[in-house]
Amino acid sequence: MWAQNEITNSLKISYPIIQAPMAGFTTPELVAAVSNAGGLGSLGAALMSAEQIRDAIHKIRKLTDKPFAVNLFIPEDASPSVALEEIQLINELLEDVRRELNLPTPDVIEPLKLPFAEQLEVIIQEKIPIFSFTFGVLPTQTVKLLKQHDIKVIGTATNVNEAKTLAETGVDFIVAQGYEAGGHRGSHAETNIADALIGSVALIPQIVDQVKIPVIASGGIMDARGIVAAFALGAQAVQMGTAFLTCSEAGTHAQHRAALLKSIDENTQLTRAFTGRYARGIKNRLMKILENYQSQLPGYAIQNAMTRDIRQAAAQQNNAEYMALWSGQAASLCQELPAEKLIIELVKDIEKIIRKLG
Amino acid sequence: MWAQNEITNSLKISYPIIQAPMAGFTTPELVAAVSNAGGLGSLGAALMSAEQIRDAIHKIRKLTDKPFAVNLFIPEDASPSVALEEIQLINELLEDVRRELNLPTPDVIEPLKLPFAEQLEVIIQEKIPIFSFTFGVLPTQTVKLLKQHDIKVIGTATNVNEAKTLAETGVDFIVAQGYEAGGHRGSHAETNIADALIGSVALIPQIVDQVKIPVIASGGIMDARGIVAAFALGAQAVQMGTAFLTCSEAGTHAQHRAALLKSIDENTQLTRAFTGRYARGIKNRLMKILENYQSQLPGYAIQNAMTRDIRQAAAQQNNAEYMALWSGQAASLCQELPAEKLIIELVKDIEKIIRKLG
Repeated sequence: MWAQNEITNSLKISYPIIQAPMAGFTTPELVAAVSNAGGLGSLGAALMSAEQIRDAIHKIRKLTDKPFAVNLFIPEDASPSVALEEIQLINELLEDVRRELNLPTPDVIEPLKLPFAEQLEVIIQEKIPIFSFTFGVLPTQTVKLLKQHDIKVIGTATNVNEAKTLAETGVDFIVAQGYEAGGHRGSHAETNIADALIGSVALIPQIVDQVKIPVIASGGIMDARGIVAAFALGAQAVQMGTAFLTCSEAGTHAQHRAALLKSIDENTQLTRAFTGRYARGIKNRLMKILENYQSQLPGYAIQNAMTRDIRQAAAQQNNAEYMALWSGQAASLCQELPAEKLIIELVKDIEKIIRKLG
Repeated sequence: MWAQNEITNSLKISYPIIQAPMAGFTTPELVAAVSNAGGLGSLGAALMSAEQIRDAIHKIRKLTDKPFAVNLFIPEDASPSVALEEIQLINELLEDVRRELNLPTPDVIEPLKLPFAEQLEVIIQEKIPIFSFTFGVLPTQTVKLLKQHDIKVIGTATNVNEAKTLAETGVDFIVAQGYEAGGHRGSHAETNIADALIGSVALIPQIVDQVKIPVIASGGIMDARGIVAAFALGAQAVQMGTAFLTCSEAGTHAQHRAALLKSIDENTQLTRAFTGRYARGIKNRLMKILENYQSQLPGYAIQNAMTRDIRQAAAQQNNAEYMALWSGQAASLCQELPAEKLIIELVKDIEKIIRKLG
């Protein structure tokens, strides 16, 4: 039976369907609704302070007694050094955008700093049953410590090499993120992006064959067809992001929702424009303005900080041209419905597809 | 039952498994072996003269009485105009390569011309049961003419828009080529490449939903796992290329075979270096040399002609650094075996996977 395997048994969930931990979109309501429906909700907590994470966890626990996951970003090495001319170039390129949004050009760029140690501390203190992470590996000792606290640990890989490295650190499961995926590439800092853009149909069986631990497929999976495909490829579970962005409980901006729902053909692009890390979103003007400067943009901590005021103002002013409209490659399959209804529908359709194949 | 559907009934084949028409690799022996085993062999005939096509068809017919397909390229519009400085730039970049291979720098570049009308004539005269094509659409009248001759017509699409355009011309089936695919992108001339790189998991269900005719999945499918995944996504058949390149009957160069068989992680790149058309192959030095000139390279007819001597000499000298080592994104799953054995194995494994899902 597809719904019972190592992953569902280990995570104590009814269905091997994980809602992706999309930082900024995963409200306590969404996380709880997915877990209550028998899937696994995930809080994308990377951009939250330790206190905010604690509050969100308490809110989730008021809404569900089912297991859920919390996700963090592996911190970048050291403090970023960046050439002043780079900052100046980007600011000049963004001058017109700021004028349009009535924003002053900032004098100082405060690099984004994520309080990883404090964030992780909350996860251990709050006895979160499942911890997932992206953008790298944890030290073997940290994985061990988490497991000693009965926390299941899920890493993210975008090619076979990353999956092998993760397996060596002792993680329980690996999310294999295909090229189709929306939002940030989960690639590790050492990986060349060109070696980490592998379509799910090619990525999943290669990781399954070369790594012994169970694999969670992600990237472009929008409905039961994608889920059964992932199982056929050898994955034991799926992680879906874009499909949950248009659920009623998601913290998705109305403009972003509208852009997803009106998609017909694939209309996304990989870009470093918003945060300095490659991410997939629906094409808009901010991407276009920085399109030819991809190799000159500074890294995550700086570029993220450099566009923050723009993204915030754009959201307030309902201007989709300057917001990050994260999306996978199959947004035309998005539906507007409550998360519980989506899960019920997925389960019913999975059964139907499997019967039809037999 | 997965093996019986509109496509297998219409093409009169036992299994919905199509060997991709890889021009230059599809020997009559390979085509016949696949068809004899119950799949559909395809002759990649685009680079052959009308007479060569006729000969190959006769050879295939001596080896099998089962249906097989012949594939051609839709011709490019008009004769290409190209700046002399471009040619000079490329020739300068390739100077060291030619020296290494003991080749003179050519005085004249004769653009590649494909005799499409004559090629198509042979297909009609020889009553080929199935005709497939890439790189564009056929005029509606030509599709009609082929169908009047009882020829089934298969077009190739790399996004929803191309699939819709093909369907309007009356083709019987559509190959949906995912981003994972090896060799040339089948994208239409009018399409921007950036809008035609969609992973199979996202591409197939979107085309299935928006186009009424049956879809053949291609791109990264190497074994029964990929095949069942394609069926789950809504495809009625698969087209596999790279998986057949290491079959005994394929016309694959020993160096190319070796490169495929020693793959561990995905190690390919999309490049215009070899032919001016985007294609996926295992990374090598020729790709590297032209990597930063992708937007300056001339189109297919010229760039193909400009590297022909290099590719031929490299093949003769067993130098894999300057050959086109076409490969999809999952070459680590390649096997060395006769095509018949591959098909038998696939069929057995498909049944096994479907049973396990149920």
